[in-house]
Amino acid sequence: MTTQQLTEQIKKKQSFLCIGLDVDLNKIPQHLLQEEDPIFAFNKAIIDATHHLCVSYKPNTAFYEAYGIKGWQALEKTIQYLNEKHPDIFTIADAKRGDIGNTSSMYAKAFFEDLAFDSVTVAPYMGKDSVEPFLAFKNKHTILLALTSNQGAFDFQTQLVDGQELYKQVLETSKTWENSENLMYVVGATKAEYLADIRKIVPKSFLLVPGVGAQGGNLQEVCKYGMTKNVGLLINSSRGIIYASNQEDFAQAAALKAEEMQKEMAIILNHAL
Amino acid sequence: MTTQQLTEQIKKKQSFLCIGLDVDLNKIPQHLLQEEDPIFAFNKAIIDATHHLCVSYKPNTAFYEAYGIKGWQALEKTIQYLNEKHPDIFTIADAKRGDIGNTSSMYAKAFFEDLAFDSVTVAPYMGKDSVEPFLAFKNKHTILLALTSNQGAFDFQTQLVDGQELYKQVLETSKTWENSENLMYVVGATKAEYLADIRKIVPKSFLLVPGVGAQGGNLQEVCKYGMTKNVGLLINSSRGIIYASNQEDFAQAAALKAEEMQKEMAIILNHAL
Repeated sequence: MTTQQLTEQIKKKQSFLCIGLDVDLNKIPQHLLQEEDPIFAFNKAIIDATHHLCVSYKPNTAFYEAYGIKGWQALEKTIQYLNEKHPDIFTIADAKRGDIGNTSSMYAKAFFEDLAFDSVTVAPYMGKDSVEPFLAFKNKHTILLALTSNQGAFDFQTQLVDGQELYKQVLETSKTWENSENLMYVVGATKAEYLADIRKIVPKSFLLVPGVGAQGGNLQEVCKYGMTKNVGLLINSSRGIIYASNQEDFAQAAALKAEEMQKEMAIILNHAL
Repeated sequence: MTTQQLTEQIKKKQSFLCIGLDVDLNKIPQHLLQEEDPIFAFNKAIIDATHHLCVSYKPNTAFYEAYGIKGWQALEKTIQYLNEKHPDIFTIADAKRGDIGNTSSMYAKAFFEDLAFDSVTVAPYMGKDSVEPFLAFKNKHTILLALTSNQGAFDFQTQLVDGQELYKQVLETSKTWENSENLMYVVGATKAEYLADIRKIVPKSFLLVPGVGAQGGNLQEVCKYGMTKNVGLLINSSRGIIYASNQEDFAQAAALKAEEMQKEMAIILNHAL
């Protein structure tokens, strides 16, 4: 999927919501545990109930790896279901990978070819040759960690390097990499006031913004500082939507939460664009 | 496994070699492709031929994920085989994970409980709360990326933060984290001259050192600057050993390469300790 197609979807659906599929068997409705594949059963129900309210789904690979082979089977089934039923949805493998060049190529193959995700999140610590193998894939997107939503972001990301915060160095430097037009960035909503500065460095790139809701970020603030002419934002919510209820009505409850956010987004889009 | 047990193994085997199991189906002997599980067949043969010459094996998860479910099955079989047949071997999941706290907990569960590795490599970019969930596991080890062996290490890791290179900040800061005694560090052999400085910050920690051989690092140099009273080094070699031959004799050829390194290590240990 191209970023232009993503923007078209956003305008059509009046939503720039990304739903995080972080499935924890301790948190899903207990009746699903009788299913042959409880993780996929949960994801399928969430997707069926919410696909018209969001433009993106983001499974975090940790939640699948934690269940071994069965977890990976559930991840495969989830991405296959999305690609078959909802090819217009922008899919994100939240994997935070990154390794030396030939190894990053294997990760890129895993997520872009084998699993056929539209994008994958990547950590920047190992630099250019750890990220460029991902960027080499056409119409695939590499979402680089810049400023994350957690407290630990202040340990290194906001430290000054030559008078400039490390995350800004990451943004600036990444723009010089080959095929950098395939980059997007993770910027946590919990640090919305940083977005004005970030937009000076990457005025057009899409930003994946976690941390609205459960982690305390504010949607209005994020849009005020981060929105571009082509929207340029994907706002992620995971727990706040998918665990809205742990009863039989979990999918409808998730849809209600997603709809709340979609309506708020529609108002913002109508004012901003 | 405790670090004391690891040091005992090193002294017993006169080796601090770690063999990287980075299995690429395009590089293994073609006759193995007829096996039901070519990746595991390759690993088993390599392990059977080399286990007396090394103290550690390190599968890089990228090479398994690239083959989807079958790859994960091969990874599971490999770690199970190691834990059953060679419980004295220190196992490393080279996964370079790291995420917000509750998500890192899921990764820790995946690698320490589900797969029962002794250790996992973790990226530091997201800071304290992304690493501490790994450190909470007793007698398990978190190998934090400090200074990697690739060219991209110079993009951010060696940038000055408050007059000190970022990788040194990572080392210093990580020492303040809870259960930091469970930390080891990745330091590339291609930057052996940095090891003297690194030892000033982490005088006793084990260092996992990639980059000897294929990437051009020098074993003597690494030991000169990096070795401690308890050895404190694991030298990794992947391609240089496992792809020594792509013919029927691949396992013997790998053993010969491993033995070369083991002998060089025995000489160093006898001089140093």
